[in-house]
Amino acid sequence: MNKPKAVVMMSGGMDSSVCAAIAQNEGYEVSALHVNYGQRTQERELRAFNEVTDYLGITRKMVVDIGYLTKIGGSSLTDTSIPISVANLENKEIPSSYVPFRNANILAIATSWAEVLGASALFIGAVEEDSSGYPDCRAVFFEAFEKMIAVGTKPETSIRIFTPLIHLSKKEIVLQGIKLNAPLHLTWSCYSSDEEACGVCDSCVLRLRGFAQAGVEDKIRYA
Amino acid sequence: MNKPKAVVMMSGGMDSSVCAAIAQNEGYEVSALHVNYGQRTQERELRAFNEVTDYLGITRKMVVDIGYLTKIGGSSLTDTSIPISVANLENKEIPSSYVPFRNANILAIATSWAEVLGASALFIGAVEEDSSGYPDCRAVFFEAFEKMIAVGTKPETSIRIFTPLIHLSKKEIVLQGIKLNAPLHLTWSCYSSDEEACGVCDSCVLRLRGFAQAGVEDKIRYA
Repeated sequence: MNKPKAVVMMSGGMDSSVCAAIAQNEGYEVSALHVNYGQRTQERELRAFNEVTDYLGITRKMVVDIGYLTKIGGSSLTDTSIPISVANLENKEIPSSYVPFRNANILAIATSWAEVLGASALFIGAVEEDSSGYPDCRAVFFEAFEKMIAVGTKPETSIRIFTPLIHLSKKEIVLQGIKLNAPLHLTWSCYSSDEEACGVCDSCVLRLRGFAQAGVEDKIRYA
Repeated sequence: MNKPKAVVMMSGGMDSSVCAAIAQNEGYEVSALHVNYGQRTQERELRAFNEVTDYLGITRKMVVDIGYLTKIGGSSLTDTSIPISVANLENKEIPSSYVPFRNANILAIATSWAEVLGASALFIGAVEEDSSGYPDCRAVFFEAFEKMIAVGTKPETSIRIFTPLIHLSKKEIVLQGIKLNAPLHLTWSCYSSDEEACGVCDSCVLRLRGFAQAGVEDKIRYA
């Protein structure tokens, strides 16, 4: 029997790597989509993507360049004139690392690919609660996107969006990753550095807190 | 008083050129977005885009390469192993020129740009009735996309999608273009050729029928 197909968006970070392991565990044949969007740690994330997909035995991969997001600007991740802010998890404002509408751009690519592959599912490792508060990481956004896919693709195309991490804490993601044997040690989360993780950006702080709360050692190198 | 800003998606074709003239006529300061997606007539369309925007006095332009749609394939416009079909306007099936989910990819880019520019409107020259029947050219698709933007961007961002041609016939588009002094003679519509328009692809046949019904001469060269 053929497995159902899924396109999984994989940055090379912890969340999307655990998400891919979940999709496999649910019986999907996974195709992995990675985007370079001109972010500072692009090379390091691509290496992590390749190492993680190899570890998980994912052979159908696509790497897409959407460097136009750098041209558009508006984010500290793609515009080096805007500093990467030090994490403040109490701050309820949208941080400068928000890349305008990035996830919609990535999901649109994934949907095009899924339609051609005949995949019935998109998986994205977005996290809503325990996160940086980006608008395009919320369940309400993914629900609206799924409705838009239903009316924007061929009548015979049926594609669902799955966000298995959306209501998990970082602690739960770490524990889930370990349970499913996802290669957390190969993943990369830091926004600002690509040799040793900085330990102070939003992404590092959320990751470190997750490992600490899970009582698990994070085996990547920190500065 | 500052004019409100709009991002207009402009392929260099007749419909989007008339759409840009409408946006200007409604008082918007227009920023023009053009995408290369590896289509056969990419160079010719880019030339038309530049000539049309210059004619209309649009100075803020962005050209984005989304050649990944070629890698994804699935369309005769981007995959030269699939022939461009000769038009059959009675055929109710989606033609091979459909590029999977192309308009969602373009709109996602436009929305990212609009959010950074502070634009409140996106204009796209999609035509529903008198068209090739692509799913992502229907009003129901644009309505769903607009809802998705509302929940996927910052709370202070407010972006509407306008599709002023959606219920027009090609004849009405030609007449509207002439009324607003849109440079129809600089536009390019043919899917398969970039020297003389082929006159037999879906796009040429729809265009020629529109000019004929409007009683207006089409001044571009046909084979």
